[in-house]
Amino acid sequence: MELEGTHWIAGRRSAEGSERFQAVDPTTGETLEPGFPEATSAEIAQAADAAEEAFTALAALAPSERAQLLETIADEIFELGDPLLERLGRETALPPARLTGERGRTVGQLRLFAELLRDGTCLDARIDTALPDREPLPRPDLRRVLRPLGPVAVFGASNFPLAFSVAGGDTASALAAGCPVVVKGHPAHPGGSELVAAAVAKAVAKHELPGGAFSLVHGASPRVGEELVDHPSIKSVGFTGSLRAGRALFDRAAARPEPIPVHAEMGSSNPVFFLTGVLSQDPAALAAATVGSLTLGAGQFCTNPGMLVVPTGAEADGFREALVAAVSDAPTGTAVHAGIAESYRSDLQTFLDTPDVELLAGTVGGDGAALQPALLGVSATTLTSRPHLLSELYGPATLLITADSTDAMTALAAALPGQLTATLHATDDELAGATGLLSTLSRRAGRLVLRGFPTGVEVSPAMHHGGPYPASSDERTTSVGTAAIARFLRPTCWQDFPDAALPPELRDDNPLGLLRLVNGQLTREPVTRT
Amino acid sequence: MELEGTHWIAGRRSAEGSERFQAVDPTTGETLEPGFPEATSAEIAQAADAAEEAFTALAALAPSERAQLLETIADEIFELGDPLLERLGRETALPPARLTGERGRTVGQLRLFAELLRDGTCLDARIDTALPDREPLPRPDLRRVLRPLGPVAVFGASNFPLAFSVAGGDTASALAAGCPVVVKGHPAHPGGSELVAAAVAKAVAKHELPGGAFSLVHGASPRVGEELVDHPSIKSVGFTGSLRAGRALFDRAAARPEPIPVHAEMGSSNPVFFLTGVLSQDPAALAAATVGSLTLGAGQFCTNPGMLVVPTGAEADGFREALVAAVSDAPTGTAVHAGIAESYRSDLQTFLDTPDVELLAGTVGGDGAALQPALLGVSATTLTSRPHLLSELYGPATLLITADSTDAMTALAAALPGQLTATLHATDDELAGATGLLSTLSRRAGRLVLRGFPTGVEVSPAMHHGGPYPASSDERTTSVGTAAIARFLRPTCWQDFPDAALPPELRDDNPLGLLRLVNGQLTREPVTRT
Repeated sequence: MELEGTHWIAGRRSAEGSERFQAVDPTTGETLEPGFPEATSAEIAQAADAAEEAFTALAALAPSERAQLLETIADEIFELGDPLLERLGRETALPPARLTGERGRTVGQLRLFAELLRDGTCLDARIDTALPDREPLPRPDLRRVLRPLGPVAVFGASNFPLAFSVAGGDTASALAAGCPVVVKGHPAHPGGSELVAAAVAKAVAKHELPGGAFSLVHGASPRVGEELVDHPSIKSVGFTGSLRAGRALFDRAAARPEPIPVHAEMGSSNPVFFLTGVLSQDPAALAAATVGSLTLGAGQFCTNPGMLVVPTGAEADGFREALVAAVSDAPTGTAVHAGIAESYRSDLQTFLDTPDVELLAGTVGGDGAALQPALLGVSATTLTSRPHLLSELYGPATLLITADSTDAMTALAAALPGQLTATLHATDDELAGATGLLSTLSRRAGRLVLRGFPTGVEVSPAMHHGGPYPASSDERTTSVGTAAIARFLRPTCWQDFPDAALPPELRDDNPLGLLRLVNGQLTREPVTRT
Repeated sequence: MELEGTHWIAGRRSAEGSERFQAVDPTTGETLEPGFPEATSAEIAQAADAAEEAFTALAALAPSERAQLLETIADEIFELGDPLLERLGRETALPPARLTGERGRTVGQLRLFAELLRDGTCLDARIDTALPDREPLPRPDLRRVLRPLGPVAVFGASNFPLAFSVAGGDTASALAAGCPVVVKGHPAHPGGSELVAAAVAKAVAKHELPGGAFSLVHGASPRVGEELVDHPSIKSVGFTGSLRAGRALFDRAAARPEPIPVHAEMGSSNPVFFLTGVLSQDPAALAAATVGSLTLGAGQFCTNPGMLVVPTGAEADGFREALVAAVSDAPTGTAVHAGIAESYRSDLQTFLDTPDVELLAGTVGGDGAALQPALLGVSATTLTSRPHLLSELYGPATLLITADSTDAMTALAAALPGQLTATLHATDDELAGATGLLSTLSRRAGRLVLRGFPTGVEVSPAMHHGGPYPASSDERTTSVGTAAIARFLRPTCWQDFPDAALPPELRDDNPLGLLRLVNGQLTREPVTRT
């Protein structure tokens, strides 16, 4: 498929605006053809209006039909073949193996949501049958199921150009819910976005659904996303990115005449706590594993371990030396776009300009898209007295934080802003004694990891990828795993309706074979009316 | 129990402020003793801080222990006996039968949440066991369950002084979730609030829980609620009341450094659509039933039918005559406080001052807390061209809206702001032909009612009491029924933890006997580690 430098709006290419931007190869700094248009206000409105027009048809699909759509999208993405990976490789500097793996994850999650829909339990169908003779008042027949919320705006992320982008987790879960999607593509990889959008549009057409079920608009200026979030047809927002951008969208959505929810996953420092016993076992191996997590994806993961907390003592000194060696040996990475590397160097300098923060390994130098790993040393007391050090430093840098005692570690944990993850390395005995620390961490983080590392987010039913603010704008929801579908569903209740007027999920004979809560009991049995 | 005119803060009475307010008997205008203090900033902070301090103990309770707490609260409310109902009768002018029924509903919903916790499925426990040999990467052991969010601020409503107040649905569902609660009592019934708070505090003490698990603060000024919502320990808000007040809380919570969710149920017009066939069957009976719903609780229900939509024609004329007669005969009600009646008369006058709006029955007169039923006539085209008529007119008034055709009805439905409910009266044949209207209504309302009336909200698993904005600030949640607990829970995931460090919900042997999603399958079986 040839790149044409267009949006995909309601099943058709569009390129009305005269303003254009181009992707840049982060490795060479070379500008890539073609140019991509900034979406005009009219195009944004057209995409949102078409999404609203497509709503009824998409919502009317049976769950199994929505499952088929997701599977066709997965197939069409595979059909794009190597040209997709090659283009994304140039746009993001991500290596082929990583992009191949990310494509697998992307189609895998589309298929996982298909499976979830075929099961249908996630639609939480509930039936309370009528009690006509109840005193003092009869109970009506009540039937409730989760239905799609409405058109969803999805913001593509820079660091996962497939799995958190045009047909990534937000789009997959929104379409699974039955919601039309308008994607605002990330301007760092417009070519890959256009290709994936073409694949989604082709799948939508194959299923003879209205084209408005899916659109992609490009934009390098914040205006495009802002106008999309402001549009009255948009009923929810999915976003992965920085706190600054996520909070701006949240504020904007909350200030609408009709406020809408924003599901923004905004990253975090993902602290890793090491207790004394584990530090003396094999410091070099532990340091290597730690730095492996730190430099994975050139440090551009939301779950990157940006804080390593150790107790003062000889064991920590040995671990520090091993970390210094590992970070010094770690290769310089390349950012998915130069802006990330520039912010990284600037933020790193701000951290280093803070009194009592020491550069233990790495340098602040480099130019262009280069991301040089760095290890900073700081005490827990300095950290808590300088709150800016508690915010995320996005990139392959981590703070080695020394705490005087386990109590000091727990106090630090309590002072942390919300985190996606918190990790503990401890011996069995230490774990048994760390209930206070763990209890505190469970308030501050969405996922607790034992003796592992925070990077690597499984796409599965039990995954939770979200956390207290500022990790997420809504810690009750996840952006990864099957529970992500709940973000885009709303309950609707039918009172005293006959079967013919009910959606199939709620009919007496349970034609979809769903597990339903009938008079408080989960069952797949049909319902008998009284 | 003697009324002392105090807050209940963390298990103790408090009355530090010098500013006081008193309840007023709406029937007589008489001021009732004692005076109640406006909570000081220090008292509000004390309640919120104590809630945070109580969090760990409350969260550590097994679901069955939380169930016992709810049941003890129910028992203690009953123990208050007639003095509670007598005091509330004087404070709200609600008749004894209604208050007795509302008490039953209030203790009933506490017991329903207890039952829900004993079952435990609502905690949505999920386990993905490890796949150590998976290629290219092993899968860790992931276990996720819903845990309490944190301290919740609950705003007591005026119109249900028990069921939506100090120990009403918001408090019951928050405590069921394991969240400490700070109630801001409604200033119209501070005496009843104090009595119920004493009962809850007694139950908390009986279970030897920290007093901070529950507090009640009084305040007639908006400052008290505002300071509560601003407090960093508060993590969520439950509210039932007006759009103006609910939106103000929503905006305030969204503007916090750490924004928090607000679950505001803000009422609606609850349109009732009548198709031609039903109007000629027994217009007098239909009108009587309609006006019965309109004047229930003196028209002070969130689900009060404020719009009656009929097709033009002779059948509608007959129904209108029957409605005029029924409204003319309907008794004048008494508001739960005079402010409601004053707003009602003022809003009614604004509606009547609108060109082409006609007063068909009732009057705008009356004084004090009197609520006189009224029937207004207007065409669908006038309604949609005068958007202020689309907003809720709180009280026993309803608009009789004539539409030229079923298409005009559907167009009106599409133009409606979000509603808690929408109701349809139609013959079987008409119902079969009304798919477009029903589909439109299902986008605009949380609950659809057939051949009934919107008042009467069942407390059950399948109930949904919420709707698109402005009916609710978050249509994905309900404030009535067992699903209300989800508002106050957040997922937490444990990766690779041994049994001893896991909450009981997630342990291998399933000690709580929960239905859990294990590797994608719902089961009560124990889990074997790989």
